[in-house]
Amino acid sequence: MQQHDGPLARLRRGHEELVLDLLRKHGPLSRGELGARCGLSRTTLYDIVAALVANGAVVASAPQAGPRRRGRPVERLALNPGAGQAIGVDFARRAVHVAAVNVAHEVVGTASHAHGPDLSWPQRIELAERLIGSLAGDSLRLDALSAIGVGVVGPVAWQPADDMPGPPAELVPLLRRKFAVPVLVDNNTRLAALAESTWGTAAGEQDVLYLRLSHGVGGGLVVGGALHRGAYGLSGEFGHITVDPDGGPCECGGTGCLETVASVGAVLEAYRAAGGEAADIAGLTAAARAGEPVAAGVLAAAGRRVGAVLAAVSNAVGPGVIVIGGELAAAGEALTGPVERELSRRLLPVSRHRLDLRPAALGEVGAALGGIALVLHQSPLLSRYPGRPRIGEDG
Amino acid sequence: MQQHDGPLARLRRGHEELVLDLLRKHGPLSRGELGARCGLSRTTLYDIVAALVANGAVVASAPQAGPRRRGRPVERLALNPGAGQAIGVDFARRAVHVAAVNVAHEVVGTASHAHGPDLSWPQRIELAERLIGSLAGDSLRLDALSAIGVGVVGPVAWQPADDMPGPPAELVPLLRRKFAVPVLVDNNTRLAALAESTWGTAAGEQDVLYLRLSHGVGGGLVVGGALHRGAYGLSGEFGHITVDPDGGPCECGGTGCLETVASVGAVLEAYRAAGGEAADIAGLTAAARAGEPVAAGVLAAAGRRVGAVLAAVSNAVGPGVIVIGGELAAAGEALTGPVERELSRRLLPVSRHRLDLRPAALGEVGAALGGIALVLHQSPLLSRYPGRPRIGEDG
Repeated sequence: MQQHDGPLARLRRGHEELVLDLLRKHGPLSRGELGARCGLSRTTLYDIVAALVANGAVVASAPQAGPRRRGRPVERLALNPGAGQAIGVDFARRAVHVAAVNVAHEVVGTASHAHGPDLSWPQRIELAERLIGSLAGDSLRLDALSAIGVGVVGPVAWQPADDMPGPPAELVPLLRRKFAVPVLVDNNTRLAALAESTWGTAAGEQDVLYLRLSHGVGGGLVVGGALHRGAYGLSGEFGHITVDPDGGPCECGGTGCLETVASVGAVLEAYRAAGGEAADIAGLTAAARAGEPVAAGVLAAAGRRVGAVLAAVSNAVGPGVIVIGGELAAAGEALTGPVERELSRRLLPVSRHRLDLRPAALGEVGAALGGIALVLHQSPLLSRYPGRPRIGEDG
Repeated sequence: MQQHDGPLARLRRGHEELVLDLLRKHGPLSRGELGARCGLSRTTLYDIVAALVANGAVVASAPQAGPRRRGRPVERLALNPGAGQAIGVDFARRAVHVAAVNVAHEVVGTASHAHGPDLSWPQRIELAERLIGSLAGDSLRLDALSAIGVGVVGPVAWQPADDMPGPPAELVPLLRRKFAVPVLVDNNTRLAALAESTWGTAAGEQDVLYLRLSHGVGGGLVVGGALHRGAYGLSGEFGHITVDPDGGPCECGGTGCLETVASVGAVLEAYRAAGGEAADIAGLTAAARAGEPVAAGVLAAAGRRVGAVLAAVSNAVGPGVIVIGGELAAAGEALTGPVERELSRRLLPVSRHRLDLRPAALGEVGAALGGIALVLHQSPLLSRYPGRPRIGEDG
């Protein structure tokens, strides 16, 4: 399963990254200039450059015409300016989010559209295509697109497995056909963790626990400076940690999972059961902010469960930063206060003042941005990510 | 904190490992032969070789005398045969364990000595020196020793911190002075995890959860093919995950930690409180094997708590293998049966048949062997371990 990751393959990837880094820093360089800067032998360098040109990441510029015609004209190598444009799509439970970046990796546009929980996959894909189309323009040329990174709910099978269906089989081929670029898929919450640790509130952190409290509850881990996937792509399932062995049934087939008490739906239900009146989570959090005891009590109860799970995972994994995102995180202090108190109560005492709890910074398009981070593969967080994609590679 | 781990430093380490690997595989090689095999430029290769010679990992053999005296004689490079001998020491709570390997990395000896819980550090160090001395002989020459790896109980501070005292300040200088080699220290349970994943029951696995049920309860994680340390060296603290918020006080300052119900002491106490009679854990497990209901009940209760914690951590981290070690693991099925049932009940259903539970293979010297794995730094599991030592480097 990991044979592509032997020492030689790793070394080769290191060489490729070194060459790309040098071109990113210095602009176009000749092979000779590259060689002087990277310490690789001529043969190795030619080999690495050939592969990067073949996969479209690097272009060789036409030799400059000039009076001096003796000897072979010097070709210059540069990053492919069209290779950097990328789109991320998040197929969340009740919305589609898209984001796009330009060559300089600046976000040139984002778009979101909410939908009911039962929208069919063909309709969701059509919606995504429409949102992508709405972003196209001067700063995003769809014909210069290099890749699309897609987030979906639930575990994404590394190798197809009957009990891990992942996204519908037609998703990748449909997007590929439409946009003619590689399409890569991963769990959307893990992608949100990647985005927060690449561009968001935990940028530069080496050990991050990201928790998303939305219609589902999940998360992602950055451990030792790398996005973690888990042996079978099943890591970060914080929503399915048992918080009450005698609790209610969970969608996953288990009982008393965190998701059954701390998802948007579970919290709203608890609020209504306690006599609260709110159409949605925004109404509930507004009520809590206004000091309504029932709303505050419901959020506090969920917060304590969240804190207990975060403490257990933190004692096991030892993150430096915990990031909380998702619609429920918008409740602010009414939720995070109880989270922090329970976390502190259950955390190994020596860890307590070392762990930093932060709200997510990237909002609802976090996972779509994570899809971009995945396909751009420029984050050092992905340097050891299994099945790591390359630009131009088949999705 | 991680500046030593930039892409260039990583690349350099990759080059060093490549050179060492080639010498390990092919035996002595000239610089020319090395160059032809490794794809590095002359300049880079000379640089890498010079560093390896300087730190003692590689020796340059005297050029062969012979009739042909024209040109510069060809020096050959080889692994330093004296550089591979290493010793591991585990200062456990109530015993000192030592292990030694020879040049070929075969274990040439192990020794253990139990002691009371209150033995002073100077006495424990003296005991370790005596055990090491007892191993010296033809197959272990102490004057050819390259390094000592030491495991200690509790978190080991990366940078000194008042609330993370680690081992006593005199430990490292004392051992250094006595044996004149670098001494490296880490948490002993994490070292046991490293050993099980390098040479033990989980050798070759990329994602391992190791749990040790001994006088203390702790563990270690291998994630994505790398030993995990955590942001502050505080990972793997499975023993301090809360299993009963209303439970008894724990040594760590918390309440109702797993260690308060699943350590050797806690299980023995529960057994005696239930009317059982056993001098030690061996007696208790013998009673359980003989079908004594009280013994079986006590082990089952501890096993259920263990299973709950393992399930929570597994849902978060997604290991492929769980290894259980420590004195309690010797109880076998009486403990692991209930562990497995609770684990299965609480694990994300899609993970259940994918997770493999195995008894530890290396016994009580596991952590000492892990100390050796740490200083030999030849495990790919350590390729990203922070503060990773090099042979000959100052400890």
